[in-house]
Amino acid sequence: LINRSIRYHKNFVKMSSVDSKTSSSSETLKLYNSLSRKKEEFVPMNGRSVTWYSCGPTVYDASHMGHARSYMAFDIIRRVMSDYFGYDIFYVMNVTDIDDKIINRARQNHLFEEYKSKDHSLDDVIRDCDQAIEIYKEKLAQETDKDKASLLSSTIKTAVAAVEKARDGSNTSLPDLIDAVRDPLSKLLDRKYGATVTDHHIFAALTQKWEEEYHNDMTALNVLPPNVLTRVTDYVPEIVVFVEKIISNGYAYESNGSVYFNTVKFSTSPDHRYAKLVPENVGDLAALQEGEGELSVSADKLQEKKHKNDFALWKASKPGEPAWPSPWGPGRPGWHIECSVMACDILGSTADIHTGGVDLKFPHHDNEIAQVEAYYETDNWINYFLHAGHLSIEGCKMSKSLKNFITIKEALQTNTSSQLRLAFLTHQWSATMDYSVNAMQEAVQTEKALKEFFLVVKDMVWRCPEGRKGFFKWTDSEKELNGKFLKIKSSIHTALCDSIDTPTTLRLLKELLTLSNTYIDAKRDDANARLLADIAHYMTYLLKIFGVIPHDTGIGFSMKKEAEGIEDVVMPYAIALADFREKVREVALETKAKPVLQLCDWVRDEVMFDLGVKLEDKKERTVVKLVGKEALIEEREAEKRAMEIKRKAKEEQKKKMEEAQRKLEAQARIEPRDMFKDQMDKYSKFDDQGVPTHDENGEPLSEKKIKKLYKQWEAQEKKYNSSKK
Amino acid sequence: LINRSIRYHKNFVKMSSVDSKTSSSSETLKLYNSLSRKKEEFVPMNGRSVTWYSCGPTVYDASHMGHARSYMAFDIIRRVMSDYFGYDIFYVMNVTDIDDKIINRARQNHLFEEYKSKDHSLDDVIRDCDQAIEIYKEKLAQETDKDKASLLSSTIKTAVAAVEKARDGSNTSLPDLIDAVRDPLSKLLDRKYGATVTDHHIFAALTQKWEEEYHNDMTALNVLPPNVLTRVTDYVPEIVVFVEKIISNGYAYESNGSVYFNTVKFSTSPDHRYAKLVPENVGDLAALQEGEGELSVSADKLQEKKHKNDFALWKASKPGEPAWPSPWGPGRPGWHIECSVMACDILGSTADIHTGGVDLKFPHHDNEIAQVEAYYETDNWINYFLHAGHLSIEGCKMSKSLKNFITIKEALQTNTSSQLRLAFLTHQWSATMDYSVNAMQEAVQTEKALKEFFLVVKDMVWRCPEGRKGFFKWTDSEKELNGKFLKIKSSIHTALCDSIDTPTTLRLLKELLTLSNTYIDAKRDDANARLLADIAHYMTYLLKIFGVIPHDTGIGFSMKKEAEGIEDVVMPYAIALADFREKVREVALETKAKPVLQLCDWVRDEVMFDLGVKLEDKKERTVVKLVGKEALIEEREAEKRAMEIKRKAKEEQKKKMEEAQRKLEAQARIEPRDMFKDQMDKYSKFDDQGVPTHDENGEPLSEKKIKKLYKQWEAQEKKYNSSKK
Repeated sequence: LINRSIRYHKNFVKMSSVDSKTSSSSETLKLYNSLSRKKEEFVPMNGRSVTWYSCGPTVYDASHMGHARSYMAFDIIRRVMSDYFGYDIFYVMNVTDIDDKIINRARQNHLFEEYKSKDHSLDDVIRDCDQAIEIYKEKLAQETDKDKASLLSSTIKTAVAAVEKARDGSNTSLPDLIDAVRDPLSKLLDRKYGATVTDHHIFAALTQKWEEEYHNDMTALNVLPPNVLTRVTDYVPEIVVFVEKIISNGYAYESNGSVYFNTVKFSTSPDHRYAKLVPENVGDLAALQEGEGELSVSADKLQEKKHKNDFALWKASKPGEPAWPSPWGPGRPGWHIECSVMACDILGSTADIHTGGVDLKFPHHDNEIAQVEAYYETDNWINYFLHAGHLSIEGCKMSKSLKNFITIKEALQTNTSSQLRLAFLTHQWSATMDYSVNAMQEAVQTEKALKEFFLVVKDMVWRCPEGRKGFFKWTDSEKELNGKFLKIKSSIHTALCDSIDTPTTLRLLKELLTLSNTYIDAKRDDANARLLADIAHYMTYLLKIFGVIPHDTGIGFSMKKEAEGIEDVVMPYAIALADFREKVREVALETKAKPVLQLCDWVRDEVMFDLGVKLEDKKERTVVKLVGKEALIEEREAEKRAMEIKRKAKEEQKKKMEEAQRKLEAQARIEPRDMFKDQMDKYSKFDDQGVPTHDENGEPLSEKKIKKLYKQWEAQEKKYNSSKK
Repeated sequence: LINRSIRYHKNFVKMSSVDSKTSSSSETLKLYNSLSRKKEEFVPMNGRSVTWYSCGPTVYDASHMGHARSYMAFDIIRRVMSDYFGYDIFYVMNVTDIDDKIINRARQNHLFEEYKSKDHSLDDVIRDCDQAIEIYKEKLAQETDKDKASLLSSTIKTAVAAVEKARDGSNTSLPDLIDAVRDPLSKLLDRKYGATVTDHHIFAALTQKWEEEYHNDMTALNVLPPNVLTRVTDYVPEIVVFVEKIISNGYAYESNGSVYFNTVKFSTSPDHRYAKLVPENVGDLAALQEGEGELSVSADKLQEKKHKNDFALWKASKPGEPAWPSPWGPGRPGWHIECSVMACDILGSTADIHTGGVDLKFPHHDNEIAQVEAYYETDNWINYFLHAGHLSIEGCKMSKSLKNFITIKEALQTNTSSQLRLAFLTHQWSATMDYSVNAMQEAVQTEKALKEFFLVVKDMVWRCPEGRKGFFKWTDSEKELNGKFLKIKSSIHTALCDSIDTPTTLRLLKELLTLSNTYIDAKRDDANARLLADIAHYMTYLLKIFGVIPHDTGIGFSMKKEAEGIEDVVMPYAIALADFREKVREVALETKAKPVLQLCDWVRDEVMFDLGVKLEDKKERTVVKLVGKEALIEEREAEKRAMEIKRKAKEEQKKKMEEAQRKLEAQARIEPRDMFKDQMDKYSKFDDQGVPTHDENGEPLSEKKIKKLYKQWEAQEKKYNSSKK
């Protein structure tokens, strides 16, 4: 209410930070649908509610980064659809705990451990090994896959070398030999004794162990658990009923205790189309047999089928294979049928979304579709099929033969789950992603820049007064930054609508970061903390949606209001200390009170460091950053390493200088008359003072050359004389 | 993988919890728009981005519950639009710190305090009081508003009584007399000396104090601060430019140093329509003059205007009124112009939403619209005008004369902000809401039921094992509960789309609560903790959106992962103790070890109580509830009060019984011959044994009657004899 002169501020209206109508108001989410092979508008069947079935792990081994690629991609899509687009997602995932791979692995592990624990003579073991290697050699001869062949041949090589050594009488221990021939031996033992393995706990122990590991990996990656998890072992009765119905609908037949899906009947039916996802792969027998499983593609098994493209719904179990009763005798479900049955049990006859890795498209997902259509006699089960792209390692396919197989646990030893997520986010979920040192370095840099910005803004927010005094009139700088902020938000919306384009979103987030940092640098202490907090909150909101920053996942009312985070408790004390220290330091600088300054350094570098607080002395004031002690230690280590490199470089330089100096000094101690004497390859005769007169061939030197040599001689004389002082 | 008998489970597919296509997939948000007076689909101008201008407080007094009604309503709408529907909201609010009410209040407060601090004789004060009361009597004579007249007359009554008392010589202190006549005296002093108040800090001190109080109230109510807050005192130059443009566009004129909006010119222009919101109120001079302000409706001021419906854009300031320079001389902005100018400065020439209390529709918002249209020569400024309904107190209008005026601070002494919110949520934002004891009791009950449910679920979640063991196969109960859960989510979506229908949403939430509790009661320890956690998370999510549960508002990465809340730190210890205690208690119950049982009670009632943890011994196990100590104390007090009531009732009952017993005993001590003697109103003669023979009129009694009396006599004899034993 104070009289002020009027700044005639003619064009203020133009400077509003809000532009009207820059983007379409009807932007909605589109998703890349494998069924149509294009981006389609996403319209769930039932309002905001979305039903989703996702193919989960087959639990017989550790999950690797290829698995991480899929689970992370779907976790990000799920979070964006739920927390950004507001869908109520009901997410069902299965665990495959009946499978030929599981049977083989469990049986072989068991027989191998049993073999190892028994007493054998060296001769017996060598004989077994030879036999086992023979089997592997046969396998190799039949193998058409290059990768698998390469792995087999390296296994054979190792095994043969170990057996040779043992035969030579080199002092190899028996357990070492057995371990070196582990895979071939296991195979041999399985052939011999596999049928004797009847204790079902042997299979259950394996699947339970690896399912537990799977959950641990997902928790470590911050992947949300499904709303419902279904296990095949819990669903055998339902599967039997489902298969019976498919038979009675005429799309499957029993043969020798197994049941097969009749692909010819199905694909010739006017209501159905077989292999909706990848019709071009029909007839790819290698893919089909991979899907049927190792134990289910023997010649006699293949003969049971009416047509070569038919696949098993129910497999008769041989001795040594777990079995459940059924109208067709004891057996177990085929691989594809489980997903059809469990999805329908929980979600009903249709679902909005089905997801899986790109390698599951054919035959797994195509057969799932056929089964459900055959069961319900419909032609519409899933509306959107989403497939996560492959993962490559430094540009190469991940494979055991290339020895670039990386488990999730191994990856998490190098990078945090936040860093992995930031790297995954820079790739479109449906595209191939390359996991490389470079990609991870970029993610680490992005994380660092974000953290730094958040720390700076938090410091500002804590220093911004509460209530009335915290609100200031906006100047053009705030209007400009806010205008750009709104535009970036709008562009990010467009990107996320575009089949959840996270690479573009992340690029825009980095742009917003740069704009904000530029604003802070320009305005310094006049920067508007509220606007920056709005920007930081928006960025935090997106990073939480992406799972990079953990969510508040509490239920209901919390115990106390203060429980909002350790920062609320700690920050006031840290700021009080920082302000006090700053005042003390100012006085100390003025009065040149060195011990006080040392104390100021000490409290910053020791006391606050131990509390995880970083104090940065800037020109305007001290910035307080709650970083955490571990991060500070890491930072200090990095600094130390950098210092060490510098120190070493300096030392090297010093050594070089000293060396040069020493050389010079040694040079100076040479008498002028001797200085050319060791150059017999150049000169053959010298005068009294030791200056050359003839070259190496006995030819006299030119006047000019002699003059030049005299000058050198005189210079050396000077050095020699002064070195003697 | 264990062989099991097959339960032929024929109809499992029907039992899926997900029904297809029950609601329309195209539901979108509709809002009740005051401009069209109906619910309209909400389509922002620019994608997801929403610009919003909200009328803020005039800061000269404490905010009351009527204000809370508006700010809470818009806060809830803003949160739902942002956090539920996903809009990026840019929310601008003004603070009116130039206003006739402010000038009057600041000047009168100042003059009154000055008067009170000076020495006066009693006679002088009485004379001033008489004069002041005369002014009030004149005011009363002219007042047409019933409420205001009633308030005036009660003020006069109090003042007159105080003056009478002082005149009588009753020992009234001078300060008490002055305080009793405060309002009339202030008015008198303002008339006499108002023009001498020139120090602008007097006005600023008042507005700054009440703006600070406003922010405190909003923080206490958990109302989010605006993204931008604009103050009129910061915008006078921009207002001058804006008014100049309106004049040059031909819609306003200068008159005697003031500038008025030409409503006739505007409403006769083919491009405009005056009073778009409430055209039927044009000509309501009382409303118009209320809008112009007390200092601006004197006869000479009204004569300056060309037409009676014209209103001030710029007011020439008289002495004692704060003034800023302008092309028309020193003055200040009119009330309506500020909002037009500040909204356009920050948001540009159009905005999606404008909000305010229902009483601001006319003339304030209608004049805002006219001003912006006159400035830009457009006919479209705001797309959606939302007005919060009135608040009544126990069914009556809130008014100072009814003495039911409740400030926000007072309301917060009785109820928490969460409870107030729950009460507000049970009313549609656009309807009148009744603030009553009943409504608040209902809200308290709702909060209690929700808290109880969350505590029970948290206990289950903490006991549910991590990883593989936490996932169980769903039975029909889970499918049924989940099916209902999905339906309720869908219905809540429909309700929120329907102009943010919070009453229906809250009713559905309570329904979900009941369903969940029924499921828990039925399943007990077999209840699926993951499904219940999903439900509790959804409820928490909505309650956070509504502001009932505080949000996680942190920025960026937190300092430590453990900082997720005190519960994560405390719960494992509490559960360990509870489990240990349970085991001890079991043994103690078996072995009847009373001292151990006492210890078990003690640790529950004393130790854990002090830690804010409630242990509830249930048949299945001990439920652990992290309630907080304050809440536990409150609960215990409530229990004590209930016990006390019970105890008193019991005591009362005991007394009654004793009384009856005593009467009986006294009765027994009467000799049979005297037992009828005091019934002289019934009988006049008695035989030797004292049994009546004639009635009160001297007539002999019938045989039958005498027989009956004899029986009574014999009974008394028995009692008498036994009482003497």
